[in-house]
Amino acid sequence: MSELQYCVDGELVPASEATVSVTDRGFKYGDAAFETLRSYDGAPFEWDRHYDRLQRTCDLLNFDHGYERGELLDHVRKTLRANGFSEAYIRLTVTRGEHSGKLAPPTDPSPTLVILVSELPRSGVGGSPVWDSPAEVEIVDTVRIPDSAVPAAAKTHNYLNGIMARSESEADETLMLDVDGNLTEGATSNLFFCDDGVLKTPSLDGPVLPGITRDVVLELARERDIAVERDTYRPDDLYRADDAFVTNTTWEVRPVTRVGDRRFDTSELTRTIRDAFDARVESEYDDS
Amino acid sequence: MSELQYCVDGELVPASEATVSVTDRGFKYGDAAFETLRSYDGAPFEWDRHYDRLQRTCDLLNFDHGYERGELLDHVRKTLRANGFSEAYIRLTVTRGEHSGKLAPPTDPSPTLVILVSELPRSGVGGSPVWDSPAEVEIVDTVRIPDSAVPAAAKTHNYLNGIMARSESEADETLMLDVDGNLTEGATSNLFFCDDGVLKTPSLDGPVLPGITRDVVLELARERDIAVERDTYRPDDLYRADDAFVTNTTWEVRPVTRVGDRRFDTSELTRTIRDAFDARVESEYDDS
Repeated sequence: MSELQYCVDGELVPASEATVSVTDRGFKYGDAAFETLRSYDGAPFEWDRHYDRLQRTCDLLNFDHGYERGELLDHVRKTLRANGFSEAYIRLTVTRGEHSGKLAPPTDPSPTLVILVSELPRSGVGGSPVWDSPAEVEIVDTVRIPDSAVPAAAKTHNYLNGIMARSESEADETLMLDVDGNLTEGATSNLFFCDDGVLKTPSLDGPVLPGITRDVVLELARERDIAVERDTYRPDDLYRADDAFVTNTTWEVRPVTRVGDRRFDTSELTRTIRDAFDARVESEYDDS
Repeated sequence: MSELQYCVDGELVPASEATVSVTDRGFKYGDAAFETLRSYDGAPFEWDRHYDRLQRTCDLLNFDHGYERGELLDHVRKTLRANGFSEAYIRLTVTRGEHSGKLAPPTDPSPTLVILVSELPRSGVGGSPVWDSPAEVEIVDTVRIPDSAVPAAAKTHNYLNGIMARSESEADETLMLDVDGNLTEGATSNLFFCDDGVLKTPSLDGPVLPGITRDVVLELARERDIAVERDTYRPDDLYRADDAFVTNTTWEVRPVTRVGDRRFDTSELTRTIRDAFDARVESEYDDS
């Protein structure tokens, strides 16, 4: 395949011709829901959870994307096949569609579907992460947008908050505090830290995206009877911890080697979670 | 001209073919600066102020759009001429451009320029406003994004905050408070209120967009020796006022007839400002 194929409104198109109208609300206002997925062995990982979150984002934005679960999955699989990809990064977007009017949303939107893909190395037990080294992290001045301004559970094309955070530092990831100084999340990842055998992560009561990898990690911890605490934390709680890791779909479980001046050695608990996650991914493969 | 012509990257294209790449950061992240302008008699009103604000937005987002003042004005004028428009609404966008990478911005962006236009009725002394009646306004629960999360002075394609606010109410405009409960601005307008002969408006110390019409109104007030106060206000300050008005490029000066349950009759001061604004617009026309 010489050129990458993307999917726009269900049709496969060469990447160089994949476009949206300049009147699409996804372009004009970032009025769009999206999901970042990974495929393992040709199948999107945790499809149901991603579909559910996409749905929740659209509910929060108050529009119906109009795609059934299986129909949308077919479009993703078709796009992967067209590119011959088994292991891939997938960015799936539904916008509120073209609209010649002003800010107030149309009552009968025609959503636009966009699926971007690119190849990724194989993951799982024998695989390799997309990152070269554990993450160096900085807590930045940019604060996380409060839930009362834009719903934190909505994953949308309004991503300037994360871009502002990431622009402040050359670190691999930048952590944002909320307006009250509590830990929230990274520009593109959720935060976990390990404290005396307890796995801790900022609760969704704060402005924190309910990450799918975060969800899977919490499930893996439950299955292994690892003590988990979801609460409101200050930066000092993180500095005092044994170590930390960040999670997202592409990074999966990425250990943190440094937050500001505080250096961490990877703990046994973080290793256990990483191994459990790799095993979970490995179970997606049918290498019999 | 049968079909509307837009401008993309300096080229005129029929509206139906005016697109941006799905990998454009303006689409993926709302990573774009824009201006809403009006033309009177074929010339964009307050071009220098709009150009300066676009520049400031790009500075805050940390990218250079690369267009000289006169060059960008030529593209606007060319787009107006192609459509035969004298009186028009103009939406001018520069994005951080196409980017196949992830969130961290490219160091050498190639910005995308998009100019949308549509016709508007003539304004000024003999003209008619785009609105049918004074504005009914509601103060909504959606709070204005703090300046520390996304710079309030940046006018960007991250517009979900305003969309969330506007979705809460059928009113003509929805006012947002900041996280501390102070008045900020409407979803698409700045707020003014008149209190015993003093013209008051929330200060730019709060999360308030420095509106161009707001700026012109403050200038007109200064020229007429009208007392002006820019400060931090609570909703009660507004309810206790004599009346209020909202400003933006398309509405110009729009009286407010109601905020929540509080009804207003248009004051002499609001009339003076409206008349002054109309006269200012009228001076753009050369009807000798």
